[in-house]
Amino acid sequence: MHADTTCYLAGPFRELVTMQALPLKGPLNDSALRVIRNGGILWKAGRIEAVADFETLAARPGVTLIEPSVKGVVLPGFTDMHTHIAFGGSRAADFALRNGGSTYLEIAESGGGIWSTVKATRALTVDALAKRTAQRANTLLQQGVTTIEVKSGYGLSVAAELKCLRAIAEARRMTSADLVSTCLAAHMLPSDFNGSAAAYLELMADALLPVIKNEQLAHRVDAFVERSAFSEAQILPYFKKAKAMGFDITVHADQFTTSGSAVAVAVGAKSADHLEHSTGKEIALLAHSDVAAVALPGASLGLGCPFAPARKLLDAGCSVAIATDWNPGSAPMGNLMLQAAVLAAFEKLTNAELLAGITYRAAAALGFKDRGVLAPGYRADFLVYDADGYQEIPYHQGSLQPAEVWKNGTRLTFTD
Amino acid sequence: MHADTTCYLAGPFRELVTMQALPLKGPLNDSALRVIRNGGILWKAGRIEAVADFETLAARPGVTLIEPSVKGVVLPGFTDMHTHIAFGGSRAADFALRNGGSTYLEIAESGGGIWSTVKATRALTVDALAKRTAQRANTLLQQGVTTIEVKSGYGLSVAAELKCLRAIAEARRMTSADLVSTCLAAHMLPSDFNGSAAAYLELMADALLPVIKNEQLAHRVDAFVERSAFSEAQILPYFKKAKAMGFDITVHADQFTTSGSAVAVAVGAKSADHLEHSTGKEIALLAHSDVAAVALPGASLGLGCPFAPARKLLDAGCSVAIATDWNPGSAPMGNLMLQAAVLAAFEKLTNAELLAGITYRAAAALGFKDRGVLAPGYRADFLVYDADGYQEIPYHQGSLQPAEVWKNGTRLTFTD
Repeated sequence: MHADTTCYLAGPFRELVTMQALPLKGPLNDSALRVIRNGGILWKAGRIEAVADFETLAARPGVTLIEPSVKGVVLPGFTDMHTHIAFGGSRAADFALRNGGSTYLEIAESGGGIWSTVKATRALTVDALAKRTAQRANTLLQQGVTTIEVKSGYGLSVAAELKCLRAIAEARRMTSADLVSTCLAAHMLPSDFNGSAAAYLELMADALLPVIKNEQLAHRVDAFVERSAFSEAQILPYFKKAKAMGFDITVHADQFTTSGSAVAVAVGAKSADHLEHSTGKEIALLAHSDVAAVALPGASLGLGCPFAPARKLLDAGCSVAIATDWNPGSAPMGNLMLQAAVLAAFEKLTNAELLAGITYRAAAALGFKDRGVLAPGYRADFLVYDADGYQEIPYHQGSLQPAEVWKNGTRLTFTD
Repeated sequence: MHADTTCYLAGPFRELVTMQALPLKGPLNDSALRVIRNGGILWKAGRIEAVADFETLAARPGVTLIEPSVKGVVLPGFTDMHTHIAFGGSRAADFALRNGGSTYLEIAESGGGIWSTVKATRALTVDALAKRTAQRANTLLQQGVTTIEVKSGYGLSVAAELKCLRAIAEARRMTSADLVSTCLAAHMLPSDFNGSAAAYLELMADALLPVIKNEQLAHRVDAFVERSAFSEAQILPYFKKAKAMGFDITVHADQFTTSGSAVAVAVGAKSADHLEHSTGKEIALLAHSDVAAVALPGASLGLGCPFAPARKLLDAGCSVAIATDWNPGSAPMGNLMLQAAVLAAFEKLTNAELLAGITYRAAAALGFKDRGVLAPGYRADFLVYDADGYQEIPYHQGSLQPAEVWKNGTRLTFTD
């Protein structure tokens, strides 16, 4: 892929926040952050070779210097590890209804909610869905999100789920962000399915997952464990089958009621996401497992619900990632830094915890060991901000956007 | 000012939300909104002449047609009726400290907080402060905020408060937004003042307010009634003097503790702002007065505090406005629609209540009767969104920005 073997050096930058040598789990003080002043970043063939004092790096022979447009602050590219951006239609009417007094569950149970998005998504061609997905991915990319997880889950039939996953695959050709697909066929029991939840999940496990595996459309399987979707008892056999086929597992857990975390731990999931209703018991369970705990503040902001107990999760020893949950129903905003910074204000997260949650901890929850840190061997995915110091970035709660976004050592350009 | 007596007609637009004929106070159902489909807006010399079906308006003789760049949704220009955007410096370190565990009052009482901004603001020249103020005003203007209140309050001496207000006056020449100045000399007792709170307020009333009046630098006086600032007993004589001089009064009330609303009602203030800690008693007091109740969700998002009880305030019969409170300490984000839409999600406000809070109700709280409504006689301040319907705008929680911003019948252009 990278025939270019030039050694590029960008800098000097006022501050370079490496996120290096930080623990995967538990609380982080800002004093633990390694911040290089007047630093440079050196890479070759899309991989970082060195991150150090600029003058030292500039003295190396054979280095091609790239002068940055701004000499401010460098952060690793972000990872948004939980999104539903492959969808058609709008749920603006749901938003108005809900704020007019209807609950999410009432809207869902009355046939609105997710099901209306399923209908709108099914009505799109693969190309049209791919285009929408890529547009949203590029919106995130412009914010500095260089790796994006994207779930299916608005198809809810074998054919329509495959279409969604193929659209995500096609969207990869329209964005420079890395897109990670997840199969969320278990988003809800589709209203047009003629049978029980168990029968639906059996069909998905037997007729959908093998095709996904075979065509390498996704290596992750997710489910919504909730009153309006699937119970822990219903989902457990589905997850076990998926795991036996080699899929990684991730779970929508404890969003409106306390269910899902225990299953996540039982099946050794990569992550349990939402957790707004996790109690001390679930927090302890997660903390004593290798399951990442994922806060999705965008859903809290969209629904007007409590935030996930991120402070307690960290203090208990969890690896806490933060993601947008961008979806048409509950989280239509789609702004990772803003949401992470609002979560930090409500949950009292340090800047180090906030940044870890959208860089290396989020990447780890997706199974990546090559991104989210600025250090030798990692991908040259980085962001340059016009700022006096890194603290300015969370402080402005999303209003300060990167001036430059670099992916695999290439500076991206954006057209509106 | 407007020698141009041409009749301009813009349209046709998919939807035109007029905000016409809605009550100043109390709850609003979305069904009360007058939404004109395929409508047009006709104006002359910066004032609206007619808002109606486009074809009907186009049939009028002597009309100059302006084809919009997008044919989506038109809203009245917004009013942000509470900001502190005339400041120097940054409080990014406070944000990190606070999220690391320190409270707002602890930071304030330890000599950080507002006082650090006062020092940074005093260090700026009038020109430099005017430039920063105008930049922030233009950021809001680009979001569709055509009228912006700006407080002093980072001077805190006679000379420095005058400098702040003169900077706001100078900023008017650098922005097309209307800037409304407010004197907030009573922001806190300045750390370098040699005397009591009473003595400070006496000095401001006797030596500052008459100059402001004389030079017409502001017609509004504000005070922060709070444990860290001034008590109700301290502020009452100050407000009475200001009122006797002809100033309108507005109050920072009930933010961290329940104090300020009663004073606002007692002195017949234009508005009581914040109200996060208003109880049933204060809500009833405000509802039975002509004092507007102002929610400032940006401060809740910045501090991680409860939101003002906007639903209860509306249900009790208040006129509820929504403003950003943009300031360097507690509300650094500066995004009106985003904050209003988040408040709506948490407090369950209808779209009509949300839009009223940032249009005609906000304008009324500043004493304006000529804006916030699209109807004959009102200013031709309006926004055009690339959207299928008006519901899309709050639904996207700030991610959907206007494609066109018009002020007094002139389309504004923005350069980054």
